[in-house]
Amino acid sequence: MDPSKVDLPPMKDLTIENITENVHAINSRTPDPRLRYLLERLVQHMHDFARETRLSTQEWMAGIEFLTAVGKKCTDVRQEFILLSDTLGLSLLVDSIDHPKPPSSTEGTVLGPYHTHDAETHSLGHSISHDPNGQPLLCLCTVKDTSGRPIPDVKIDIWETDSKGAYDVQYEGRTEPDGRAILRSDETGNFWFKAIVPVPYSIPHDGPVGQMLRSLRRHPWRPSHMHFMFRKENFDHLITALYLRNDPYETSDAVFGVKESLIVDLGTVSPEQAAKYDVPEGSKLLTYDFVLVTEKETRELRDAEARKAAEKLGRRMKIVEGLPVPDVD
Amino acid sequence: MDPSKVDLPPMKDLTIENITENVHAINSRTPDPRLRYLLERLVQHMHDFARETRLSTQEWMAGIEFLTAVGKKCTDVRQEFILLSDTLGLSLLVDSIDHPKPPSSTEGTVLGPYHTHDAETHSLGHSISHDPNGQPLLCLCTVKDTSGRPIPDVKIDIWETDSKGAYDVQYEGRTEPDGRAILRSDETGNFWFKAIVPVPYSIPHDGPVGQMLRSLRRHPWRPSHMHFMFRKENFDHLITALYLRNDPYETSDAVFGVKESLIVDLGTVSPEQAAKYDVPEGSKLLTYDFVLVTEKETRELRDAEARKAAEKLGRRMKIVEGLPVPDVD
Repeated sequence: MDPSKVDLPPMKDLTIENITENVHAINSRTPDPRLRYLLERLVQHMHDFARETRLSTQEWMAGIEFLTAVGKKCTDVRQEFILLSDTLGLSLLVDSIDHPKPPSSTEGTVLGPYHTHDAETHSLGHSISHDPNGQPLLCLCTVKDTSGRPIPDVKIDIWETDSKGAYDVQYEGRTEPDGRAILRSDETGNFWFKAIVPVPYSIPHDGPVGQMLRSLRRHPWRPSHMHFMFRKENFDHLITALYLRNDPYETSDAVFGVKESLIVDLGTVSPEQAAKYDVPEGSKLLTYDFVLVTEKETRELRDAEARKAAEKLGRRMKIVEGLPVPDVD
Repeated sequence: MDPSKVDLPPMKDLTIENITENVHAINSRTPDPRLRYLLERLVQHMHDFARETRLSTQEWMAGIEFLTAVGKKCTDVRQEFILLSDTLGLSLLVDSIDHPKPPSSTEGTVLGPYHTHDAETHSLGHSISHDPNGQPLLCLCTVKDTSGRPIPDVKIDIWETDSKGAYDVQYEGRTEPDGRAILRSDETGNFWFKAIVPVPYSIPHDGPVGQMLRSLRRHPWRPSHMHFMFRKENFDHLITALYLRNDPYETSDAVFGVKESLIVDLGTVSPEQAAKYDVPEGSKLLTYDFVLVTEKETRELRDAEARKAAEKLGRRMKIVEGLPVPDVD
């Protein structure tokens, strides 16, 4: 770089008190107003954290080493930074911000690290799990809009663990998807499939995040649940899960995903249902009515909440492509 | 883990508004009060950041990918997370917090990633650089306490780049240290050595931190400087550097290290000095009087500043081993 082209605001003699405004100044020359705002808030919070805690050099170094170990643990099938975000409640928070829901709709929850893109599309009634030790479960569900109208042809991605609490991708030598499928709702907004009763499982805890949980005396368990993801043109992408009532980890989920509205009581299939859906008599039964929100409703809600957050900060903000940036004009 | 032993505060239905207090509750069971406090402030700031910016899922994912790339870039000789901390002003801030200085003493600055532990101890007058293309520089320095008393036998670690702006460790196949040495001050607190005139250099910018700097329209340059580290029993460990006046990057250091009190004007050695110290006539001359602070003074200053910061937060805090923790008794 040609030094004669340095036209930064001059910085020197940076102290505990003035370093933050100087980092803001040097970072403020990007033409992207959203990046500028994100960096400004990030640097402000990071510096405030150090100032409030009087962070010592030794603690800072422990943090550097922890983050390095988290990065080193990441592979194609293991995302330790997402696990860190999940266990510190950030993932649930970001999902709640990005996908606000009106009261009448199905709440979202954490995606988790086990969604894959190779599940196959099957017809309704498909059996998504091949685990012979799983307890049979019949799932009868509907998907509607907030006015109660059925939504046909919704793409529904479903995934769950086997009866040992492990996803297919956690086994070495996996050749094809298991415990996962893509279905499409019928003309009346119905979809049904065969699965196994979900069981609790622990998130991977042999890495730095597991070490953090142990230091904090936290357990790595998630309550029994089944994941669902809904996609349909003009509707907001819904990432959610259903949880079983009275799971031992119902109120202590390691990744903060449980919501009362997503907890289900399993029933038992009737002889008629057993015959109609070709499942063993006495199989467990899960029924649920999902409600999707339109993209328009979601965008309006998101904008309104962004405006409220900006007001709370006491700054003049504008909303650009659904995201707040300072209004400096 | 035995689910009957789960005795966490029950958590469910976590929202944008209540998730933070719930993460605090689940993290608050560690017996280490300092870890508890650090996690509480960390989670608070991380969540506030997401709430204030209305962080989108896409931006969150970009952050996850950025941190993963930073971790992947780290090796035994490259610490990309330290570089990230340096370029966001955190390193300078933490050093300022951990090593507060009374006005009469030498200010500290960033350590940087190029200090090694294999420099050899040499006698005074040693020539620390073997670069034949460097401009000869004679350094005549003293080290004293804040009352002006000379401090003998201080261990002084010195390191600088070669004339191309590269540290020895940046060359593949490095077999022994160059551009670095350890000296000890004599009975009168004096130390002197031969070196080369420092030149500007750029921090490594072929990784994710370099990409970040480019997005922010920032350059990766550091102004010409020479690093010093002082260790002596009962004195606070001083990490500092001297900068050359009128360097093109004097007021735009990529890692925020320059302080007016650490900027030097180089002189030229006199014929007498050239003869006395066995350096070429016309060599450049650097003189500087370093002032160390006792550990006791530093501890008292650090405690006082920690108390002030706690008051600012409006919380009842106590200082344990020099670091603040909430006083919950």
